[in-house]
Parts: sequence; C-alpha cells; structure tokens
Amino acid sequence: MSLLVVGSVAFDSIRTLSGHADNILGGSATHFALTASYFAPVNVVAVVGEDFAEEHLQIFQGRPIDTSGLEHAPGRTFRWSGEYMENINEAHTLETQLNVFEHFSPKIPPAYRDSEFVFLGNIDPTLQLHVREQLPHARLVALDTMNFWIKGKLEELKKALARVDLLMANEGEAMMLSGCQNLRKAAASIQKLGPRMVVIKRGEYGVIVFMDDLIFSVPAYPLEEVHDPTGAGDSFAGGFMGCLARAGDLSESNLRRAMVYGSVMASFAVQDFGLARTLRLTSEDIETRFQEFKSLTHFDV
Amino acid sequence: MSLLVVGSVAFDSIRTLSGHADNILGGSATHFALTASYFAPVNVVAVVGEDFAEEHLQIFQGRPIDTSGLEHAPGRTFRWSGEYMENINEAHTLETQLNVFEHFSPKIPPAYRDSEFVFLGNIDPTLQLHVREQLPHARLVALDTMNFWIKGKLEELKKALARVDLLMANEGEAMMLSGCQNLRKAAASIQKLGPRMVVIKRGEYGVIVFMDDLIFSVPAYPLEEVHDPTGAGDSFAGGFMGCLARAGDLSESNLRRAMVYGSVMASFAVQDFGLARTLRLTSEDIETRFQEFKSLTHFDV
Repeated sequence: MSLLVVGSVAFDSIRTLSGHADNILGGSATHFALTASYFAPVNVVAVVGEDFAEEHLQIFQGRPIDTSGLEHAPGRTFRWSGEYMENINEAHTLETQLNVFEHFSPKIPPAYRDSEFVFLGNIDPTLQLHVREQLPHARLVALDTMNFWIKGKLEELKKALARVDLLMANEGEAMMLSGCQNLRKAAASIQKLGPRMVVIKRGEYGVIVFMDDLIFSVPAYPLEEVHDPTGAGDSFAGGFMGCLARAGDLSESNLRRAMVYGSVMASFAVQDFGLARTLRLTSEDIETRFQEFKSLTHFDV
Repeated sequence: MSLLVVGSVAFDSIRTLSGHADNILGGSATHFALTASYFAPVNVVAVVGEDFAEEHLQIFQGRPIDTSGLEHAPGRTFRWSGEYMENINEAHTLETQLNVFEHFSPKIPPAYRDSEFVFLGNIDPTLQLHVREQLPHARLVALDTMNFWIKGKLEELKKALARVDLLMANEGEAMMLSGCQNLRKAAASIQKLGPRMVVIKRGEYGVIVFMDDLIFSVPAYPLEEVHDPTGAGDSFAGGFMGCLARAGDLSESNLRRAMVYGSVMASFAVQDFGLARTLRLTSEDIETRFQEFKSLTHFDV
C-alpha cells in the first residue's frame, strides 16, 4: 500500500555524552522514510536547499523511496544543532536555521494523491491540515506535533486533529494538549478532538496506544548504550506506519505488531548517530529484535 | 510453601490530591503480608506497640497470616506521615516517629526457621543480614532497601546483598547503588554484589527484572486514578513472592507470571488509601486483572 510522509529534511549537528556528529542528514521525513522503507515503498514530500547534494539524494534512492515530491528550493537546507547531556531524553537546542524550511508549502504530486497511509511529520499544523485535505483516499492519517505548536497554534492544531486518525505525541505533549496529568484521561480527552488512536511515546519507558477499549503498551528495548536519540520518534513512526502499510491491515492484531515494529526501529535508531544504524539494517536484524521484544514482554497465562 | 516477611508495621497518615487518611494500618510487612496472603500462607516478623489493638490484629488474622512472630513491645507503634502532591510518585515525609521500631531486633520463631521464600522488607541492612543467617533452608530471599541505607550503611548493605537472591529497588535506588545511569548496566553491576535477580520498580512505568540472560518488563496498569501509592512496592513484592511461593516454582515461566501478579497487586493497592482496596479483593478480581495485563502486553508474532 502507498505510504506518504510530509515533513522536514535537515542537516543536524548533534552532541551527546557518547560523541558528536556534524551536518548529518536528519529531519522527520528523512528518519521516517528511511525506516519505513524496510516495510513498504515510501513517497516523500519535503523541501531541501542547494546544499542537498547528489550524495544525500542517493541515500534516499538507495532504498525504495520515491523522491519526486522532494522540492529543491534556492538557499540552504534546514539546519538544527543540539545536545543531549546528563539526561539523554532531553534535547537542548543550540541553534535552529529554518532556511528553505521557513517557507515550506508542501505540494502533493498528483501521483501521491491516492495515498492510503500518511504520516504528517512535525510541521506547522496549518500545513498538516492543508496536506490532509488533498488526500481524500487516505485510510490512516497519523500526525506528529510538538510543544511549540500546542502553545503557539492550538486552534490550527485542533482543526488538523479533527481530520486525522492518529496522534503521536510524547508524554509531556499529550499532557499539555489535554490538560490532564493522567495518561488515560489525557488520551480520552485527545480522542474527543478527533483522532481515534492516540500513541504516547515515553522515551526510555516505551510507548502506549489507546484506541477504543484497547490499551496496548510496549516497553523500550533495554539498551546498554543510547548514542543519539534524535529521530527516535520518527523512526518509531516509520516502523509503525510501515508495518500497517505493508499489509494494508488495520486489524487490532496488526496494530499491536505495528507498535512493536515501531519500537524495534526506534531501538536501532538510537544506537548510533543520525541514520547510521538504520541504514545498516537487514531484515534479519529487524526480525531478531522483534522476537526479543516477545521475550521481553510475554508470559504464560 | 512457607513464605516469611520481616519488616515494619506502621500507622500511616497520608495526604494526596484525592484526599487523606489518618493513622491507618501500613508498613512494609503489613502491605506485603496482606497482599501475599491471596497466594500463600504468610508468616510475619515485625514489632508493634501498645496502640496496636485487637482490631488491627484481626486484620492480619482475617487472612491466612501467622502472627506469632509479631512482637508486642512497650510504647507506640512506628508512625509515618507524608504527602504526595503534584507528582504522585514522590512522597514528602512530614513526620517519622520510629517508636518501638527504633530498637527492633527481629526474632525468628523456631517454627519459621525452615522458611523457603523470604522477603526482607526495607529495614536496617544489618538486621536483614542477621535474619538471613537464621534461615539456612531459604530457596529465595528477596531484599528491599532505600536511599537512606544506600547512603548511610553501604558496607552493611553490601554484606546483606552478598547473601540474597534478589534485590527489589526503584530506579533511583538502583542507579545510586550501582553508580550507573543506564538500567541494564546498573542491574549487571548489582548482580556482581550478589543477587542473581534484580527487580527494578519504575512507578507508573512498571517494573523490569534482570536475571542471567533474561530481561522481562511489565508495564504498570494504566489507571484513571491513583489515590495513594503508599505500599505499592511492598504490594508488588507480595504478589511476586506469593506467586512464587504458592507453587514453589522458580522456573523462568513462573518468574514471569510472578512479575505480572506483583504488578496486578500493586495496581489494586494504589486504587484506595492504605490497605482498603487490597482487603476487598477477590480471586476473581485478581485473575481478571491478570488477563487484562495479557491484553495490555501481548501481540501475535
């Protein structure tokens, strides 16, 4: 099934207690697309600048990713630099240069209009809604957001939420958006805004989904080292949406599997800087870790 | 199989955002014993004062709990008062009156000397070691501790840890004891001190056990309301040890079930003040929630 992501492509400079990496390929659309491409072909809508070279394009094209929706604009690509210090879960932004991303207005190529599985990466909710409205055949639209939009564009965000099936948010964002400190109440409150499914990301503690009467929780894979958490949420989304799109199956059983594949892919993403670990993956790596998640969570009744 | 707990009996005064309760029966041995008694008969070693009345004794005796190891000392019972405010996971102690607990020296009745399953509740590690040495037939000895002992009596705690099979600690305690911020490294470091199994409690995020190559994680049950977290850890321990002692089964499969029963019992404990919810439980309540944990965590491979 066709899978579409709309989001950012960026060059990231990242410092953690494990080391640093400068000007490496990142951004929500990038992490999502590369990750999801292990499950299903991916179409990407994003904007890049003149510093986005052939070598960067080849990273996408080395995987089953269609880049005809990648807009090339004059100027430089979006750049972010940040660090994670004592608390590996907390990013401190050192610098943001929006560059070509500042005036990004996503254009959905005609060939993408039939997309059935859509991930609206963390961009201005007005743009998210605009994209949503161009995709009448979507079966599952997931939206990611952040505190910045919850604080600054709440009404626009609510309009976008009313038109999507799934919200992905971290714990703090879900609480901020709902005004509820209790996760179950927060999810119920967010569901009233539109999305039938609410996936709450809890960093090193894992992820939990609320849908109708279903509550399903997956722990994070207990790693000995987390080198770089940048993109973990988008990698989760890539594994999650990729698993759903691969089979075109929105059953509860496949939703549970999607939550686990999302967790698998996020656990790889943080094991190296940027996309390094994700790009080295094999299907066997993915299936082996999927089985490890079973061992991590299952018990005999 | 015989199950023994050594710990505190207390009168607690507790204030949370949900309300308050004054001078209610609490303490580690109390929460553990009442909880474990749903699984196996329990022997209790603890000390109470003259204010521990017949009505309090009857709470224990209304369940399959042997109270012949409950020492009655002159003076008042241990009293604790505390509050949980914005952060329901964090207790602020308002007052501690050690009273008869100050000079508690656990005496193991001869009839308890054959105990095979033992929970050393959070008391001075010197006393924990002393108790351990009187139980030559123990098959599984679990020890709970707290920051106070890690800071103040580290050498004594290490001696006790060298003689037990399992440490139960919360995340902060495990990190403090091991000096490792990473949970997996913290567990490995603690295992080198003696205990083969390390159970790390993560409050609203659940619990994780490390044993040999096994890592098994159980999320907390997502409750809409947490009324009083006091005793949640001891209730977890009661369900966990009770499940193991009931069948006398230390297989990996039963260890996984024990982790879930512990989580089930902790989830009930926090639903009301003190022991109120625990004392109202039926076997059916427990089995129903156990099944809910399966739904919360299982997926098809």
